[in-house]
Amino acid sequence: MVKSEIQLKWEVSPDGEPLTYQISELIRQAISEGSLRPGDRVPPTRHLANDLRVSRGTVTTAIELLVAEGLLETRIGAGTYVSHDAVLGADSFQYFEPQHSLDLKNVPIPDRDLTTDAKIDFTPCRPSLEAFPMNVWRRCVSLASSALPSPDYDDPQGNERLRIEIADYLRRARGLTTDPSQIMITNGATHAMHMLTELLVSSEDQVIFENPGYPLARQIFTSTGAKLHFCDVDEDGLVTDQLPNSGRPTKLIYTTPSHQFPLGSRLSLRRRHTLLRWAAENGAIIIEDDYDGEYRYDVPPLAPMAVMAPDLVAYCGTFSKTMFPGLRVGYVVAPKHIMEKMAWLRKLTGYAQGTLTQSALANFIAQGHFERHVHRMRRVYAEKRRTVLHAVSNLEIDATIVGLDSGLSVVVQPPQSFNAKAIVKRGMEKDVFVIPVSRYREGRRKHDNGLVIGYSALTHDQIEGGIHRLLSTE
Amino acid sequence: MVKSEIQLKWEVSPDGEPLTYQISELIRQAISEGSLRPGDRVPPTRHLANDLRVSRGTVTTAIELLVAEGLLETRIGAGTYVSHDAVLGADSFQYFEPQHSLDLKNVPIPDRDLTTDAKIDFTPCRPSLEAFPMNVWRRCVSLASSALPSPDYDDPQGNERLRIEIADYLRRARGLTTDPSQIMITNGATHAMHMLTELLVSSEDQVIFENPGYPLARQIFTSTGAKLHFCDVDEDGLVTDQLPNSGRPTKLIYTTPSHQFPLGSRLSLRRRHTLLRWAAENGAIIIEDDYDGEYRYDVPPLAPMAVMAPDLVAYCGTFSKTMFPGLRVGYVVAPKHIMEKMAWLRKLTGYAQGTLTQSALANFIAQGHFERHVHRMRRVYAEKRRTVLHAVSNLEIDATIVGLDSGLSVVVQPPQSFNAKAIVKRGMEKDVFVIPVSRYREGRRKHDNGLVIGYSALTHDQIEGGIHRLLSTE
Repeated sequence: MVKSEIQLKWEVSPDGEPLTYQISELIRQAISEGSLRPGDRVPPTRHLANDLRVSRGTVTTAIELLVAEGLLETRIGAGTYVSHDAVLGADSFQYFEPQHSLDLKNVPIPDRDLTTDAKIDFTPCRPSLEAFPMNVWRRCVSLASSALPSPDYDDPQGNERLRIEIADYLRRARGLTTDPSQIMITNGATHAMHMLTELLVSSEDQVIFENPGYPLARQIFTSTGAKLHFCDVDEDGLVTDQLPNSGRPTKLIYTTPSHQFPLGSRLSLRRRHTLLRWAAENGAIIIEDDYDGEYRYDVPPLAPMAVMAPDLVAYCGTFSKTMFPGLRVGYVVAPKHIMEKMAWLRKLTGYAQGTLTQSALANFIAQGHFERHVHRMRRVYAEKRRTVLHAVSNLEIDATIVGLDSGLSVVVQPPQSFNAKAIVKRGMEKDVFVIPVSRYREGRRKHDNGLVIGYSALTHDQIEGGIHRLLSTE
Repeated sequence: MVKSEIQLKWEVSPDGEPLTYQISELIRQAISEGSLRPGDRVPPTRHLANDLRVSRGTVTTAIELLVAEGLLETRIGAGTYVSHDAVLGADSFQYFEPQHSLDLKNVPIPDRDLTTDAKIDFTPCRPSLEAFPMNVWRRCVSLASSALPSPDYDDPQGNERLRIEIADYLRRARGLTTDPSQIMITNGATHAMHMLTELLVSSEDQVIFENPGYPLARQIFTSTGAKLHFCDVDEDGLVTDQLPNSGRPTKLIYTTPSHQFPLGSRLSLRRRHTLLRWAAENGAIIIEDDYDGEYRYDVPPLAPMAVMAPDLVAYCGTFSKTMFPGLRVGYVVAPKHIMEKMAWLRKLTGYAQGTLTQSALANFIAQGHFERHVHRMRRVYAEKRRTVLHAVSNLEIDATIVGLDSGLSVVVQPPQSFNAKAIVKRGMEKDVFVIPVSRYREGRRKHDNGLVIGYSALTHDQIEGGIHRLLSTE
């Protein structure tokens, strides 16, 4: 008696996957579950075709597939049987579980500003999309998508047209003259920092870091096993008096000289000089993270440090704040000898950002839309900032404002009697999310109760209401 | 006498950058070049405004900028002077050169199939774009670009809609059932391999590798300092008898089981079993590189190894061959505990591919265009492959064809009397570029004179003509 007469209750769906595939899967499953065992004869194709109401040819093809796979074998004149190897291929789940726990390398859980459902979210660095020129952007995307794709791989440094546009933009907007060959398009600024770290830093080294500072950058450096040497930040930026005199080799110095994150100060000219000389003497490269250099209101610009020492500075920029984070486009301007190896490394790590986005962004910059948008947003953010200052000045308490008149966030410092943790907790109860400065700091500090107020993506009402709920004593 | 009377020959252009910026740059340059020195008085704003034919307000703003930067200083009632610190900020190029050569880590020069200008280019794995549905793709892109961007960062595993589409596709097309939460969208397959390597492999380890094999993958593994253990390849794929019995810890096994690159064989069921058991016992993860699994012609499919052992296999796929390389989208299906750490690592290395491309691709798959395109291309490539076989059979020599009837390339093996190097050289003289199998191999082998014929992006005439020029004895 052949198995087909033991009702296998098989069903195929004419609207689903190809019938051949469905049938071969049914047989595979039957073997896997043990209803067909090695040595069993498979029901004749004629029976199967009848039972399943499909053509005999379809069944034959399905069976041929499984024969080719080695699950079934045909004995001439005697039908098709489940092969003795079959169980290997049909259902090997239980055999192939790892017998050792894997020794994965230590990766830090990324510090991200915890996602929140709070209605008023003061997380810093979120761009406002309210005035984003969607129609213009769509036209730039559409133009980019009309080019026939190439069968070959891109340049690992990124789309050349976009690099030319960025070089022009940096010259116009930041006074930084560079060559497109020294620019690499990255998936955001942290990507550039990761590559620089991979090229330069080993576990025996140290990295000089601002305290407080940008947590994701910090994690990139420490994930190599390198130690951090922290320098405090004051109103003139990173305190260069605290640069180390000895210790491990320093390969990288991370700084946000235009607008320190999160405290908002600007690295003074004198300290820039000191820092550059220190880097030159100690064989270190400075990562200049210009994360929001575009947004200055009443503050005059200071040219990037990369202008003063193109061979010592890797200048990192991003479109996450000027456009939006999902664009995933940043760039790095790096010294020539570093860029060469970065390009090699890039080929081993995914080649490039997609052509479509790069090309659309090149159109957007070339047609002047990017700078028009930045200009427009500068006014929008400046107004929102004024709303912050106004709301703070309206409080009954003597809160101070820390940092330059620039950027997408500001630090508000309540009087010493206020405790940041209590304010954060109070905010959560009132649907307001805010991050204290202490979260960005290594070690504790007396009276460290500043709050980072990211105002950029909020409405004026939200800003006023949020600050009131956080800090009003009423 | 004030300096303005020493003609400074300054000029501003009304059509160029903002006048304020131009003027402050002129002063900065004058300081940098030494025509204005520390202690010098800057020409009065009235004179400058006259000379430059701009408003006095514009000049005043420019000067205020430089005062704020610390380059100039105002002495009340006595005008504006070049400050004694000025030279630090204006022109510090010569001071800040690195005093040590940088100790960059060792990165291999990526093995890429040398770019060539040859008219007939047999480089493997180049997709044909002749039948790419441009209009449909443009509509999918346009639809994707109509969504308002978010002010927040994406999921580091990639666009959820695209992951759902890929999970569905893998189930339909490859019999691989997985959950979108176990998929990460990467910038191509090498990107996934690099992350797995970063998570799993250290310099004390070894990686098992096919010989011959995919050079870029090989470089990813060795760039960690790990050693490779090579296993030869025969008509049943990776020779599992050559798996090591001792030696360094093995963290990764790299294989192309559906269609070995470049030899084209398929890993047999029995060897899959052996390899999986070996991996389970030795605590290794298998990277299953399914780089062209979509393109099978008369060969029945064998389900991915990931089906047999989802906790042991990281399955890597790419859209570089089914779509085009500039899309920069690949994916990896990885065991849960690995995926969790991969997502952390991804946040430290650029977060994600851009939203736009991911979303456009999700539309393209969801609307059925992707599978229609693959189906269409399968016929196109199968015909091109037949042209290769036909051209080879028409030769006066007894060349053999190695590998399965599948993929975008095929290995043609001339008789032993032929020398691959000579054929490659002859090709170059005749405007034909071809890569010998030996280029993908570690060590030398007798009679290793196979040629990798990548036919996918060529026309039928090019294929015929190219093979004739390479191998005809006429």
